[in-house]
Amino acid sequence: MADVRKVAIIGGGVIGAAWAARFLLNGIDVAVFDLDPEVERKTLEVIANARRAQIRLHGAALPAEGRLSFAASIEDAVEDADFIQESLPEREDLKQRVLCDIDAAMPAHAVIGSSTSGLLPSKLQSAMKRPDRLVVGHPFNPVYLLPLVEVCGGDQTSTETIEIASALYTKVGMKVLHVRHEIDGFIADRLLEAVWREALWLINDGIATASEIDDAIRFGAGLRWSFMGTFLTYRLAGGEAGMKHFLHQFGPSMEWPWTKLVGPKLTDELIETVSAQSDEQAAGIGLREYEALRDNCLVDVMHALERNDFASGAVAKAYREGLKGQEAVKLGSPCGDGLLLTGHTPVMPEWIDYNEHLTEWAYLKLFGDATDVVLAQIGAGPDYVASGFSFYTVETHIRHLGQARLGQKVEVRSRALGADGKRLQLFHEMTNLDSGAVIATAEHMLVHVDAKAERSAPAPAQIADAMQGLVAGQQHLAPPGGAGRSIAMPG
Amino acid sequence: MADVRKVAIIGGGVIGAAWAARFLLNGIDVAVFDLDPEVERKTLEVIANARRAQIRLHGAALPAEGRLSFAASIEDAVEDADFIQESLPEREDLKQRVLCDIDAAMPAHAVIGSSTSGLLPSKLQSAMKRPDRLVVGHPFNPVYLLPLVEVCGGDQTSTETIEIASALYTKVGMKVLHVRHEIDGFIADRLLEAVWREALWLINDGIATASEIDDAIRFGAGLRWSFMGTFLTYRLAGGEAGMKHFLHQFGPSMEWPWTKLVGPKLTDELIETVSAQSDEQAAGIGLREYEALRDNCLVDVMHALERNDFASGAVAKAYREGLKGQEAVKLGSPCGDGLLLTGHTPVMPEWIDYNEHLTEWAYLKLFGDATDVVLAQIGAGPDYVASGFSFYTVETHIRHLGQARLGQKVEVRSRALGADGKRLQLFHEMTNLDSGAVIATAEHMLVHVDAKAERSAPAPAQIADAMQGLVAGQQHLAPPGGAGRSIAMPG
Repeated sequence: MADVRKVAIIGGGVIGAAWAARFLLNGIDVAVFDLDPEVERKTLEVIANARRAQIRLHGAALPAEGRLSFAASIEDAVEDADFIQESLPEREDLKQRVLCDIDAAMPAHAVIGSSTSGLLPSKLQSAMKRPDRLVVGHPFNPVYLLPLVEVCGGDQTSTETIEIASALYTKVGMKVLHVRHEIDGFIADRLLEAVWREALWLINDGIATASEIDDAIRFGAGLRWSFMGTFLTYRLAGGEAGMKHFLHQFGPSMEWPWTKLVGPKLTDELIETVSAQSDEQAAGIGLREYEALRDNCLVDVMHALERNDFASGAVAKAYREGLKGQEAVKLGSPCGDGLLLTGHTPVMPEWIDYNEHLTEWAYLKLFGDATDVVLAQIGAGPDYVASGFSFYTVETHIRHLGQARLGQKVEVRSRALGADGKRLQLFHEMTNLDSGAVIATAEHMLVHVDAKAERSAPAPAQIADAMQGLVAGQQHLAPPGGAGRSIAMPG
Repeated sequence: MADVRKVAIIGGGVIGAAWAARFLLNGIDVAVFDLDPEVERKTLEVIANARRAQIRLHGAALPAEGRLSFAASIEDAVEDADFIQESLPEREDLKQRVLCDIDAAMPAHAVIGSSTSGLLPSKLQSAMKRPDRLVVGHPFNPVYLLPLVEVCGGDQTSTETIEIASALYTKVGMKVLHVRHEIDGFIADRLLEAVWREALWLINDGIATASEIDDAIRFGAGLRWSFMGTFLTYRLAGGEAGMKHFLHQFGPSMEWPWTKLVGPKLTDELIETVSAQSDEQAAGIGLREYEALRDNCLVDVMHALERNDFASGAVAKAYREGLKGQEAVKLGSPCGDGLLLTGHTPVMPEWIDYNEHLTEWAYLKLFGDATDVVLAQIGAGPDYVASGFSFYTVETHIRHLGQARLGQKVEVRSRALGADGKRLQLFHEMTNLDSGAVIATAEHMLVHVDAKAERSAPAPAQIADAMQGLVAGQQHLAPPGGAGRSIAMPG
């Protein structure tokens, strides 16, 4: 497939605007069409939220943003688009009509993804001239953060269309769930709908309030569901006896009439009750404030899962790894001034203090990472460490000369000041790229060790030579300011 | 109410053992009774997992553990218990019988919590002599980590019993959800059951596999559910139009037959299908490995939410704050040798390298925390920082002399080497309490700053005096080895 360089967003509500943000933040141009006279303001607000959240999630790995435009008509929006994402209200007749309009105006190679949360693609595509180009791509709110997208073709959808949509969604950091059998509500919304109906019954019958029902989820199963679904959870609950035993135990309870077929009738009275309880639960905290809290929690939860390389954390990590090849900056390469470039990153949220400044220990984390880059250059990278040898830092001297704030980019450049058969003396300099100022330096003495024996040992010839070569290659540089210092009160 | 000093656990399976762990780790003595000849091995395994997870979650804040014993009979277990937690299999007749046995043998002041996930307390208590002492306390797996516990009284349960159980569960770090109306499945399990039934239908009808259904949850709504339930989520989805508008839109869909009343019949064929798909999903990874992964994810997710002081994160934070007064170790107090005790913690999992050793930057994190303890002692703690003034570290010198491994306890002791009107020179020493060796030292120069003006400024008289007092009080100590050093290659 050709690269998708431009996406048209048809329907710019909460879902459409968030799609626009996801594509823009991945370097893809976006044209938005919506009849709402306020579409521009609303879309820009959502994009601002999305940008903040994605920078927290992925930092400097994100590519340069695409260009955003607002189109005056469907034709204008789609005429040069490679992909169209339709996010109109959930009315089958409306979607069918507009999909035909899009079909008539879009290029031959273009593909349409519909955001419908439950309508069948076979019905949506039935009146199109090129029904093979339509597929469902059903996202979840907030679309710019949640990875899930359900991809479902109709009777006439081509395999190529499914592949193009899946590749695009994966590229922008999403987890594609291929819905292989067309069914109302696909997979996820059937599960959500089951919870929603049962929850409305609990309120309708006066058993529990909206706030109590939410607590029943978020303090219990909801915590597990952020990384494990129902089946894996129950597999673990079954313990040593296993899944089959667990299922046999469940047999009788399947007959219990705990849950109900359809939701309760949404009478005016029930709507009043649920709305009033929802107001009470929100406790006067505004929509935007809750959205920001939600996005902060989502990013932090995904970072938490990334520590475990699991579920959404594994998706985020793979996505960021995939972006790496595209970075302009190559760590370990020499800078123009003869120093090695050993660090280049925005200040991440987990590295800041209450004041949003890079915090004390995070300086040593970045300097330690820079040391690892130097070690990899002299052949003492992860493979060497795995072989049972390594360099340990025995002494460190840090000077703090300035600051860096959340999101600002910092760079570390390094040199080797000296080396003998088992020692290596390094000097790192950290620059705030936004201010241009050197904000810290670190001097380290490292010793080559036999990790198993837990004692120092001479480095093998190859590494000793590489150390000497590094020192010799930088010997022409002026001695760094601040090396060899000790701490003392003045006079 | 009197303090609960001993809990009897009747039924020591996955749930009972995890209850035992939660109580023990909160300093409460526990007696376990179960007919399983392997109860001791199984319980100790669960407690080991729980200890590891709780130390990751709460670190050194946890009190000294309670004493664990295994009782030979129900009578032995409950005779001196203040509280009894019953976690027998979900059979009403069995529970009714054993609850009468417990009732007959327990002290007059004791209260029984039943772990039943769906049986009605009014029925469970119906044959008891003291039915007022029974309440449901329904937890969620893993009980030693998930905060939710549903507390539900029966017709004859006294208010005092509900209060005693709720206070105990809160004390051990749980979130009590008071189920005010007795109903089969209480609140949470009705919601979980709705998902489970719909999920089984999706497999029964060949729409999706166990793995696909799990993905539909964990990459989408499950991420949100870890901190927000259905109602708050939909309130945000409704956007500016609000909850009432959102509900009106939903009216027609409540009539759609998406979800089904009872689960599908659990035929042998369906059980085979689900088990096989579950095996495939588990991909050969063992039960214990998955449990460890689950616990790591849960702790990291709760830490992530604690960053936002929301949902389970707020519960964990409040719990830890509540423990503070009980700590045996008081940071900031003088040690016998005249140094200040400024750090005391096990090595946490997020501080280790691939080799399970305390990693480079984590030393500076612990030394930085020690500096904060010293600053609080001289009146420059968080309140002072909030007033716009602070001390910044301008120079740091660290020596690495040894190592510490995951779970080993380390201690930091500190002294002030010098002070003038705006400078403070500190020296910290870190000891591995397991080996007794000093593993690192850090020397710091701090400067008093006006944070708003971003420049150094003389400290106010009160703080300057406190600095001088600290230096004077430690001047009799021998100068520390390794102070005033600089880094250089030998000879």
